Amino acid sequence: MYSFGEDSLTDKFEPKFDAAGLLTAVVIDALDGSVRMVGHMDREALDATHRTGLAHFHSRSRGKLWCKGETSGNTLTVEEILVDCDQDAVVLRCRAAGPTCHTGARSCFFRRLEGDDLVALEG
Amino acid sequence: MYSFGEDSLTDKFEPKFDAAGLLTAVVIDALDGSVRMVGHMDREALDATHRTGLAHFHSRSRGKLWCKGETSGNTLTVEEILVDCDQDAVVLRCRAAGPTCHTGARSCFFRRLEGDDLVALEG
Repeated sequence: MYSFGEDSLTDKFEPKFDAAGLLTAVVIDALDGSVRMVGHMDREALDATHRTGLAHFHSRSRGKLWCKGETSGNTLTVEEILVDCDQDAVVLRCRAAGPTCHTGARSCFFRRLEGDDLVALEG
Repeated sequence: MYSFGEDSLTDKFEPKFDAAGLLTAVVIDALDGSVRMVGHMDREALDATHRTGLAHFHSRSRGKLWCKGETSGNTLTVEEILVDCDQDAVVLRCRAAGPTCHTGARSCFFRRLEGDDLVALEG
């Protein structure tokens, strides 16, 4: 299927940060696999996540390290990190302490696109 | 929980493209909700996806529109598009015609991080 040790399919973690020094990070719920949020991680956020076990991101708007839930208490405890084939994206499988979206919704993806409109999902 | 019509929680789709003109797009499997890949979409990719029903992306490496599966046949038929709170990321819920990763793996996220090593997932 695939070969380790060739090109980017190495068995060593060598993250391919983008021009802004970031990886895309998708947070999925450890209980049901659903997508909770998407964030961005730089080296500092990866290191802080490893050190604490809590998901950290780089805030593009504030330009700094951000521990999800540092003020709200709605932290994300990382159980597993998956890495994609070209190492420019990760999936964080997390146990969530509460809702993840700043709106209070469980997931940031609480609306679906219908034409040009956004419609709230049921439940 | 949240209010439509305020700030970025409007009920109109007004994508917030990043400095490169891109949204982050997470592809999940319509059958089990698992993450298949992460890509990037510009306005052209959104339009092509709407027009054809097949997931299109903007290739950052090649700098052009890309229909997933255009050569391999491993297309992604989009059943639903979810949009996040600040409209800079989307989830594409897709039916996959075959494996999604260019390595032949079902998902691009076929390895997990253990220390500094990448270890293939079971199955």
